[in-house]
Amino acid sequence: MVLSEHAVIVDDGRVTDVLPLVDAREKYQPSVFIVKADHVLIPGFVNAHTHAAMSLMRGMAEDMPLEPWLQNGIWPVEKRWVSAEMVRDGTELAIAEMISGGTTCFSDQYFFPEIVAETAVDLQMRAMVGTPIIEFPTAWAADAAEYMHKASDLVHDPYADHPLVSTCFAPHSTSALSDKSFLELRVLADQLDVRTQIHLHETAHEVASTLERTGKRPFDRLHELGIINASLLAVHSVHMSATDIEVFAEKGVSVAHCPRSNLKLASGIAPITSYRDAGINVAIGTDSAASNNTLDMLAEMRAAALLAKTSAANAAALSASDVLRMATLGGASALGLAKETGSIEPGKWADLACVDLNRLHSQPVYDPVTQLVYTASADQVTDVWIAGKHHLDNGQLTNIDTDHLLRRSSEWRDRFATPHS
Amino acid sequence: MVLSEHAVIVDDGRVTDVLPLVDAREKYQPSVFIVKADHVLIPGFVNAHTHAAMSLMRGMAEDMPLEPWLQNGIWPVEKRWVSAEMVRDGTELAIAEMISGGTTCFSDQYFFPEIVAETAVDLQMRAMVGTPIIEFPTAWAADAAEYMHKASDLVHDPYADHPLVSTCFAPHSTSALSDKSFLELRVLADQLDVRTQIHLHETAHEVASTLERTGKRPFDRLHELGIINASLLAVHSVHMSATDIEVFAEKGVSVAHCPRSNLKLASGIAPITSYRDAGINVAIGTDSAASNNTLDMLAEMRAAALLAKTSAANAAALSASDVLRMATLGGASALGLAKETGSIEPGKWADLACVDLNRLHSQPVYDPVTQLVYTASADQVTDVWIAGKHHLDNGQLTNIDTDHLLRRSSEWRDRFATPHS
Repeated sequence: MVLSEHAVIVDDGRVTDVLPLVDAREKYQPSVFIVKADHVLIPGFVNAHTHAAMSLMRGMAEDMPLEPWLQNGIWPVEKRWVSAEMVRDGTELAIAEMISGGTTCFSDQYFFPEIVAETAVDLQMRAMVGTPIIEFPTAWAADAAEYMHKASDLVHDPYADHPLVSTCFAPHSTSALSDKSFLELRVLADQLDVRTQIHLHETAHEVASTLERTGKRPFDRLHELGIINASLLAVHSVHMSATDIEVFAEKGVSVAHCPRSNLKLASGIAPITSYRDAGINVAIGTDSAASNNTLDMLAEMRAAALLAKTSAANAAALSASDVLRMATLGGASALGLAKETGSIEPGKWADLACVDLNRLHSQPVYDPVTQLVYTASADQVTDVWIAGKHHLDNGQLTNIDTDHLLRRSSEWRDRFATPHS
Repeated sequence: MVLSEHAVIVDDGRVTDVLPLVDAREKYQPSVFIVKADHVLIPGFVNAHTHAAMSLMRGMAEDMPLEPWLQNGIWPVEKRWVSAEMVRDGTELAIAEMISGGTTCFSDQYFFPEIVAETAVDLQMRAMVGTPIIEFPTAWAADAAEYMHKASDLVHDPYADHPLVSTCFAPHSTSALSDKSFLELRVLADQLDVRTQIHLHETAHEVASTLERTGKRPFDRLHELGIINASLLAVHSVHMSATDIEVFAEKGVSVAHCPRSNLKLASGIAPITSYRDAGINVAIGTDSAASNNTLDMLAEMRAAALLAKTSAANAAALSASDVLRMATLGGASALGLAKETGSIEPGKWADLACVDLNRLHSQPVYDPVTQLVYTASADQVTDVWIAGKHHLDNGQLTNIDTDHLLRRSSEWRDRFATPHS
């Protein structure tokens, strides 16, 4: 629904009223009154899947398929360099970029999730922090038991009822965990009432090689283990059968669609019009900047819309307003935050983004929604509020020292680019 | 090839030298000396296919397949409103956007090509102006004979040997011309030594319906008529057989690839890695802003690279440097301008664009080419020169009154949006 000449009233971080501007002028005497002509005000984007700290690896390994990209490009650097300090700097770079582009909430999966959460709190960004769970040792934990132990700690305290940060379990993919660990994770998730997210059927290779190795596709194994349920966020899900899609719909699974990462790693194009038609909630994510290479939800929405049209051989298959909903309320629903964010409604947090359409390449405007989705770029986002706090003010980040941040980012690049001896 | 700490010497509109900065400081005493740290200097983009004036219809008809989009969305408005004045204003809007995004040359197809050419000259933009040739009457001409007559006039004078503007014949598509007219066009093109561009096999519907109606596919008909030759620029060419591709390669045809327009109209994904592997020259075009919706060659390059990877199921199928070449020298070759523009080489025009990589979403930089292609957006283009003239200076257009232009664009929108009585 598009409203013009309307006002959004914010009090104590939450939206309290949405009404015609003329009525607002009579009814309210605000302490701060902001007018934005030629702009659209939208719910802040919910980036439903990223690995924020990997922004430091943006451009580090290019033009490679998923498996060698991970094995030869990403993992050796992670093995050597991942640390609390690296995660803090990388997450800050990602949050700065995301806020600048209108994103007010992100769902993360990375090592040192307690640092991701702390960084989000420090910068007052909304986040769903996924705690990694795998069998093999990293700088963060030694085995599945320790990952789960640390993950449970994070859920309990201090994020059980935090206004900005919530947590979930993030087993990397089916190959990363034994059946025993998955069953433990499921029990723990039920006990703690915590959601789960997992990379699932991202590439044809993942599906085929798992089937060959284990006799089961990843989807079938998860289904048997009882992980395919309403608190699951399935990430990517590019290679899915019609039956798989029926099961997703029946169980109430959400899908995080990451179209540009899927293209860049040559993974394919997820069947999101089929998901939508089956009644599955679809969210949109950027994936990490190491495979995309920007955390730009405007670009991601546009890619989702354009790809769906050609995939379905129907230019009407997915409209601009469909993808705008996926990138906002769809994301909030996928993270279990639909009561808190994702739309501009009284009672929800004031997580808002303002986009300037008065640019050469966005003019003239026939319809603000199609013009937003099909023409706007991240630099047109002028103002962003998270829980009512003004984070981006006329294009300037209010809360982050970007010069210092860029210097630290360059230092990490110099370390990562050092040849492995 | 990436050179760092180098200087480009420009004299009288042309590049005269490219050499290390230290040597340049010794060898030259320039009257103007511009230093751009953290920027990349690239050949200006060649937008190999657009309909510039249609920028006024940006967003006018959305989420519709090609045929109804033309028949119900675009053509009724064109029939009522196309005029010299509309073409001038629309072309100016397009040129302003293109220069702002680093494009220094565009290939156009629209009515009133003499106005397109005049506008390009007025704004000192490089252009290949395609003269429309169809059988049916429009505000510009009554029948094929008059289109060809007017087109020939434009070729002769004043653009036979103009430093900025050249011309070519632009029959809209095979369904727009009789065999007789195509044969006349071919003779005329040979006599005048003029290139031809045509929309060819853009949609599966175009191929199937033409085959059904005439017993021949558009490609086969053009081939029989002798139009498939080295002076042809085939636009879109999404639906091509392996044999068609062999013929293109053998005859030396160039292809203008318009990936985002093809996605948006649900036309499909052109097989450009097959073209590249066959040795066919591929250029990149935005198509018009009515089907894309921006004339943004950075976004178009990125889309071309990402789509090719997934189409070929190989993330290495098309690299960042491959698409950068297509968007610059590939375009210049497709327009017969490879000796004039498309690369930074002594003797060519100084058609240059400078892109700032010192932005949050482009940092850190491991490789300037991949960072340019996979992260940069049009607003990062800070400076543009065409034939040495400084058109964009620190993000400001030097030659165009944008406020006035945006006002006129809004006026056209108001006219176009008036219901047809």
